Amino acid sequence: MIDLMTLCAFNAAYAFSIDSDSLETWPQFFTEDALYRITHIENENENLAAGIVYADSRNMLIDRIAALRLANIYERQRYRHILGIPAIVEQNSEATYAHTPFMVARIMATGQTDIFATGFYKDKFVGSHGAAVNGPSFGILLQERIAVCDSTVTDTLLALPL
Amino acid sequence: MIDLMTLCAFNAAYAFSIDSDSLETWPQFFTEDALYRITHIENENENLAAGIVYADSRNMLIDRIAALRLANIYERQRYRHILGIPAIVEQNSEATYAHTPFMVARIMATGQTDIFATGFYKDKFVGSHGAAVNGPSFGILLQERIAVCDSTVTDTLLALPL
Amino acid sequence: MIDLMTLCAFNAAYAFSIDSDSLETWPQFFTEDALYRITHIENENENLAAGIVYADSRNMLIDRIAALRLANIYERQRYRHILGIPAIVEQNSEATYAHTPFMVARIMATGQTDIFATGFYKDKFVGSHGAAVNGPSFGILLQERIAVCDSTVTDTLLALPL
Repeated sequence: MIDLMTLCAFNAAYAFSIDSDSLETWPQFFTEDALYRITHIENENENLAAGIVYADSRNMLIDRIAALRLANIYERQRYRHILGIPAIVEQNSEATYAHTPFMVARIMATGQTDIFATGFYKDKFVGSHGAAVNGPSFGILLQERIAVCDSTVTDTLLALPL
Repeated sequence: MIDLMTLCAFNAAYAFSIDSDSLETWPQFFTEDALYRITHIENENENLAAGIVYADSRNMLIDRIAALRLANIYERQRYRHILGIPAIVEQNSEATYAHTPFMVARIMATGQTDIFATGFYKDKFVGSHGAAVNGPSFGILLQERIAVCDSTVTDTLLALPL
Repeated sequence: MIDLMTLCAFNAAYAFSIDSDSLETWPQFFTEDALYRITHIENENENLAAGIVYADSRNMLIDRIAALRLANIYERQRYRHILGIPAIVEQNSEATYAHTPFMVARIMATGQTDIFATGFYKDKFVGSHGAAVNGPSFGILLQERIAVCDSTVTDTLLALPL
């Protein structure tokens, strides 16, 4: 069984990899066959799989980061994730399902700071079985992370991972 | 003695019940004779019991949710609570007193997101003694939660629980 | 070794000392020879030690609070810190190094609330060895806290501790 403190530590490292511009480490938080989506609450409630961002493997996440580097997104803005404590909704010997609230601030080059996105992660964690040799060493990985945004208005700038 | 991790898990579930529109589960986080108030820091510092919202039983909380459903508040806006780690201020075999900071974002139908409220919960937790059969299963319940807002300006839209 | 939950509890008390206007307790979270700085990410990345605020002893922090009281800063605004879970980046028997994200809201007398600062603490924690008799009793103290702000635009109102 995965304990709550381990989820917290994992999420802290996850957020830090994005906010500290260490994006290349970000895919290492996922299993090879991971599902990663960004969507909004109304789509999610209606089970519309089509979201703002969709990836169904770690390799797609790696490609995404490479594309972001080419686009130089980080030249223009910074992000800061503040995550809540996960609410564990289901747990068995195979996996832990948890919901974690997030609030992400965006900091523009002018210094202007606003709330960029709020919502929650709908997660499925599994044991890493020692697989992620170069990755984080929490003993767990994300097999599924769906970032469900509260706002239904898609920001076309939503290029960075949540 | 109630440990810090249990408080964190309890608060995570509490916030999620509000933000996920599962308001009917919200009163289950309180004892039958619970006190729940929303007030602001200046009133609280002067011990003015009159706050923005006042309830002194779980039944009043249940009534409040029923009224909110009739008013269809959730049609027009969403909330997202981000809670900090509780600071335990006193603890004995009967109860645990803690202060927990909150930041609540409001998301309008247009997608506009702003900081709706900040402040802290002034809480008294007690053991649930197996009482809340249908409620959350953390072994603890709130006998008192005072949501002390930092802003002294009452938002007349403050209809949802904090 | 300092565990993650202890860091969380320490940080919760730290933030609360500032937000509840108990500023006089704030220096007690630091060792006598502590380094405290506020800077921004670009300066920090270039190893520019010159920051927005600089102190290299607990006594300087005490002086700073005395100056703030004279300036009556708290008459005009309130703050609310929301801290994330620390990401422990290095740990040995002497010290624990951690990064903790923060988001600080400022609440003006008019009730207007905005995101005042975001960033992360770059911390070095050491054992307190029973030294801080009047201070917090977590068994640890900050020997170094660098508050690295995401925004490079210095707010000249930045007078309160982060």
